[in-house]
Amino acid sequence: MEMKRIVRQLALGFVGLLIGGAASAQLTANDSKREEKIRSLISKMTLQEKVSLLHGNSKFYVSGIKRLGIGEWALSDGPHGVRAEINRHDWAYAGWTNDAATCFPPGTALAATWNPQRAYERGIVLGEEARSRKKDILLGPGINIIRSPLCGRNFEYLSEDPLLISSMSVAYIKALQSKDVAVSVKHWLANNQETHRDAVDVHMSERALREIYLPGFKASIMEGGAYTVMAAYNKFRGDWCSENEYLDREILRKEFGFKGVLMTDWAAAHTTVKAALAGLDLEMGTDKKDYNEWYFADPLIRAVKEGKVPVAVVDEKVANVLRVMMVTKMFDEGKREKGKMNTPEHQLAAYNDAAEAAVLLQNNGNILPLDFKKIKSVAIIGDNATRKHCDGGLSSEIKALYEITPLEAIRKKFGVDVKINFAQGYQKQSTFKEGSNAGQTSTDKIDWKLIDEAVKVAKESEVVIIFGGLNHDFDTESSDKQNMDLPYGQDVLIREVAKANPNTVVVIIAGSPVKLSGIVQRVPAILWSWFGGMEAGNAVADLLSGKVNPSGKLPFTLPVSLDQSPAHALGNFPGRDLSVNYEEDILVGYRWFDTRKIVPQFPFGYGLSYTGFLINNFSADKTSYGKEETIHAKCTIANTGERAGAEVLQLYVSDPECSVLRPEKELKAFDKVFLQPGETKTIELSVKVSDLAFYDETKKSWNVEAGDFILHIGNSSRNISSSVKILVK
Amino acid sequence: MEMKRIVRQLALGFVGLLIGGAASAQLTANDSKREEKIRSLISKMTLQEKVSLLHGNSKFYVSGIKRLGIGEWALSDGPHGVRAEINRHDWAYAGWTNDAATCFPPGTALAATWNPQRAYERGIVLGEEARSRKKDILLGPGINIIRSPLCGRNFEYLSEDPLLISSMSVAYIKALQSKDVAVSVKHWLANNQETHRDAVDVHMSERALREIYLPGFKASIMEGGAYTVMAAYNKFRGDWCSENEYLDREILRKEFGFKGVLMTDWAAAHTTVKAALAGLDLEMGTDKKDYNEWYFADPLIRAVKEGKVPVAVVDEKVANVLRVMMVTKMFDEGKREKGKMNTPEHQLAAYNDAAEAAVLLQNNGNILPLDFKKIKSVAIIGDNATRKHCDGGLSSEIKALYEITPLEAIRKKFGVDVKINFAQGYQKQSTFKEGSNAGQTSTDKIDWKLIDEAVKVAKESEVVIIFGGLNHDFDTESSDKQNMDLPYGQDVLIREVAKANPNTVVVIIAGSPVKLSGIVQRVPAILWSWFGGMEAGNAVADLLSGKVNPSGKLPFTLPVSLDQSPAHALGNFPGRDLSVNYEEDILVGYRWFDTRKIVPQFPFGYGLSYTGFLINNFSADKTSYGKEETIHAKCTIANTGERAGAEVLQLYVSDPECSVLRPEKELKAFDKVFLQPGETKTIELSVKVSDLAFYDETKKSWNVEAGDFILHIGNSSRNISSSVKILVK
Repeated sequence: MEMKRIVRQLALGFVGLLIGGAASAQLTANDSKREEKIRSLISKMTLQEKVSLLHGNSKFYVSGIKRLGIGEWALSDGPHGVRAEINRHDWAYAGWTNDAATCFPPGTALAATWNPQRAYERGIVLGEEARSRKKDILLGPGINIIRSPLCGRNFEYLSEDPLLISSMSVAYIKALQSKDVAVSVKHWLANNQETHRDAVDVHMSERALREIYLPGFKASIMEGGAYTVMAAYNKFRGDWCSENEYLDREILRKEFGFKGVLMTDWAAAHTTVKAALAGLDLEMGTDKKDYNEWYFADPLIRAVKEGKVPVAVVDEKVANVLRVMMVTKMFDEGKREKGKMNTPEHQLAAYNDAAEAAVLLQNNGNILPLDFKKIKSVAIIGDNATRKHCDGGLSSEIKALYEITPLEAIRKKFGVDVKINFAQGYQKQSTFKEGSNAGQTSTDKIDWKLIDEAVKVAKESEVVIIFGGLNHDFDTESSDKQNMDLPYGQDVLIREVAKANPNTVVVIIAGSPVKLSGIVQRVPAILWSWFGGMEAGNAVADLLSGKVNPSGKLPFTLPVSLDQSPAHALGNFPGRDLSVNYEEDILVGYRWFDTRKIVPQFPFGYGLSYTGFLINNFSADKTSYGKEETIHAKCTIANTGERAGAEVLQLYVSDPECSVLRPEKELKAFDKVFLQPGETKTIELSVKVSDLAFYDETKKSWNVEAGDFILHIGNSSRNISSSVKILVK
Repeated sequence: MEMKRIVRQLALGFVGLLIGGAASAQLTANDSKREEKIRSLISKMTLQEKVSLLHGNSKFYVSGIKRLGIGEWALSDGPHGVRAEINRHDWAYAGWTNDAATCFPPGTALAATWNPQRAYERGIVLGEEARSRKKDILLGPGINIIRSPLCGRNFEYLSEDPLLISSMSVAYIKALQSKDVAVSVKHWLANNQETHRDAVDVHMSERALREIYLPGFKASIMEGGAYTVMAAYNKFRGDWCSENEYLDREILRKEFGFKGVLMTDWAAAHTTVKAALAGLDLEMGTDKKDYNEWYFADPLIRAVKEGKVPVAVVDEKVANVLRVMMVTKMFDEGKREKGKMNTPEHQLAAYNDAAEAAVLLQNNGNILPLDFKKIKSVAIIGDNATRKHCDGGLSSEIKALYEITPLEAIRKKFGVDVKINFAQGYQKQSTFKEGSNAGQTSTDKIDWKLIDEAVKVAKESEVVIIFGGLNHDFDTESSDKQNMDLPYGQDVLIREVAKANPNTVVVIIAGSPVKLSGIVQRVPAILWSWFGGMEAGNAVADLLSGKVNPSGKLPFTLPVSLDQSPAHALGNFPGRDLSVNYEEDILVGYRWFDTRKIVPQFPFGYGLSYTGFLINNFSADKTSYGKEETIHAKCTIANTGERAGAEVLQLYVSDPECSVLRPEKELKAFDKVFLQPGETKTIELSVKVSDLAFYDETKKSWNVEAGDFILHIGNSSRNISSSVKILVK
């Protein structure tokens, strides 16, 4: 299906059709013909052949069994694009000329769209490009909870809220796998920090596990039907995630009924027998040159021979591998999706994501949008005006076919009419080295020479746009940020420029929370445009000029100061002595801020528009509900301004009386609504009463206590338009 | 008058009588007999003799003229105690054995009482001790606006609000000068930072000058009747404060009608002719060994002889000196106050200040007060449990007769019944060096050995009290704080201890804002007890045990993060290239936070009590007023709890429609009300309509624009109980 048609159909209300799919999309072992074929193939294999399917034979491939018609399995990094080809036996790029790909904005940007359509379209594009590159599994989506603003991989992840994560992840998975490519949902589980990620032991309550950290995975598997899952580097309650009986056997296999492949993160295997028995299927990336020495190679054969691992356990693993191969049509290449690369539709999808992700945080005096037909001169300031970001962040780095920088786009779109004065403003201070914080400086030197240049161009220009924020020295796999500050003295740059020219707009390019308290009072407008992928510049130029009306919403709380954040307020990030206890428990993100009445810089779900919206007439269909029923709430939303735009209706629920502490409110439904000027729509949002449950540690089950609940409708966790009380019987 | 009687009388309502005094207490030249005597004395002096009265002859003395019966003039440092004797010709202490004095809590603590009685009592004590030490001028009060949390001298200053400053300063001055000692109100003007204080040029709008920075000085002179004023080190609008024609001649002399002595801060003179003509009277502390070479010594004589300074100008200065000498009864020693040192009443006054200053910031689950009769063991943790602070901060350091530390007091008061386990917890990291930030470390080393010890004692104890905060390596003359953090890794200490024992109370000992966002979520109770003077330990012990009910209120806004603060949000602290522009203008302190809707950690005027209060029935006596009238507002306040206590009623006013930006609200009246359990009082608060004016830069005068104003009654700038609208015709 062509992207344009998809976009049109989605706009016309075909979302449910496309995304919802069948009631249960879960991969099962119920297809008797398929299971029969799997059993038959296994029966023909030697133990060596079986084991060859359970570990890598190179960086990103797994051996096939030619004599049985089983092809080599090809994996690739890539939650926001298909990574360029890596050498088979080392980490250098292979230097292909045909592996440049479409690059989307990373995870937090996707979540900021609050629009599962965007996730669905991305899945389609990634699936097509993965197939075009002959990949069978595309690693991702990364759906770990954003627990601390400092986690280096936050930019790849989605949100602090399990519902928002689930909604985006499920749409992404369904779309991608519809293209005969398997996802690998990662990182199972609790890879919420990069510091000591290969050693840290994570502890949390059962309730936090159930309410916060598991739901995204559960939905990805049970609703999205994810074919593979990736075990994280870290330990969980004392055992490595790749060999964690409770996580891998009890929850993933038994509770979730997962019938796909559980693979390791690269080099996350630690044992043979324990991992095999716990339920790990596939070992990848182990740091031993002789592939036969990997835990799931010769040592596994020996373990079977010594009776330490039953052959039935190996057969189960092989069955999981074959099942994923079959559902991705590896045995039916004629019917398999052929894929395509770098189509205009793919690029449009990347643009749409970037355009819909940007969050307008502040717009005093409606300084934005800028009318470039009337403006005679504009200063473009900041290293991020010209920096490309697609090729950064380690495993998720993409060799983008192209990447439009903000300065390029602004020059191209407005340069004929408007004089553009550029100044670098600040400077990246050293080169990032893998596995360290070498690119981060703890005390930034203020480069007054660059600031003075910037002030000069600001004075010579009618309007100033500063492109600041982070880069992949900060938002990156393998190390965490040291603090939440805007690096390289940007606070000082921004203040000095704004003094010289008060018509200063700041664009923040970053994938994780940064401290804005140093600039919010200094400049009238702040647009958070994330790492924007290959179309970053085009999207941000159109947002600034008003061709696109901002409709993104924060997928995480933006604290005033790091100490406000729960993990930091309680001093349990990144842990001590290689152990971290998630003491904030269920109070992650806005659940913490709202419950503890801490006012953040900008709340979860927040974002402005160039138009105005009015939410009204909020009501529930009934006043009381049984525990098996569904609440149907309704409200009207009107576009009260002069521009088309979109608002995200957010339905939160409070449980004011409960035997345990509940968060002040929790997101239970949302809907992004597009409205023409003057248009009013009536929107229904549904919540199952069973979704109001908390995880009851005493009963070891979910529990909805009868009594009052309060439904809130609003457009951020702290801006509630209306509330209604309902009774659960 | 004895202190006990004063306390009793004040409690009985004699405050007005004692503090209010005559309608105009200003020092004038209207006493014709006195002026005649001054003229007569001057007529007998040689030029050399005149000039000898206008500069120091040692560190803290000015020569008299023996043949005319004019004694040597003795000055001493000391806004919160009379400083120990310094050598005449160098900065070493003289080593006297009889110069130990009463030491009060420094300025911010005094302001935190929100009780002018406390300022009055302090003035009485300081006056008595100054006289006992034969001092004629006691330097202080320090009343500069707390503009940034980082200013090193904030602890000596009072508040961010001009009305609170004025109220406390006027009471202090009246009391102190009633003991025949002159105050020296400092630092005239805008010494709001220590960084480059001897070089920085301060710029601010005329409106900010009039509305924020001048009122405290104006009230001190025109209501308090201050006899001397001290010119600050810094420049103001290009000219040194000690020779600033606009400040010293136009405002101080002409507008305020100041007839006392304008002296320099120590070594703040820079010229002879310019300073002489601008209105400086007395040069102190110049860094030239030969006193005859000082600007106001031989060079002044030469300038007069060369006709550059008219002799009438010198005579004016001498007259100012003689006038202050006369009103302090230097010419009438028989009638002059004899003074007394270290009486029980003096010590009671120091105790009362400390007891009434402490601000209870947080008390979740009413963990405070602690019932030491029921508690079997308590851990006392923190360097500040045993550190003495009176002898620190440079010019305001006091050789206290004694200083009770918290640990000493707790041991003495409760040690018989309760097992006390002490651990140091953290460590001061180096010795402070004058004029540098050497005692401050930018990256604190976490001392895990000390933390582990502290955790151990915390686990062994029922309750934990951590004494943290700052010391005079941070709150000190001559350097600013580098940041607002709790130093020495205290955040980590407090978190670890609180994990080990959740019954943890934190006592903050500091004189300026520190960042609490790292601990507010970690511990149930926080008591801010300031630098508490010589009775610090006794007061804090009684506050913790409930013998005293906390009634202090924050005299400044406590930001979540430094960047929230106006000077830092706008990036104009400490300036650049030796120039600082107060760009936040009138939006200082809560005026900024409330107008810009920034939620601080704890707001201005905030403080809890062990009892509850209910404010009700707020009304104004009329609905509309003429511009010359006075608004009489009333409300009731009830003590709804079980303990006697005090609440500070705060009346703020908003001007919702005005031709210029007004602060969201401004404090216009307050009253500290003491109530027995169950008691209700009706309190009247009065505001002159003329006090609702703003300074109109276009008209160069104060302006009350007709229209609506809103009166708010509350107990902090952000907790308003009730509001009423009035009309100004």
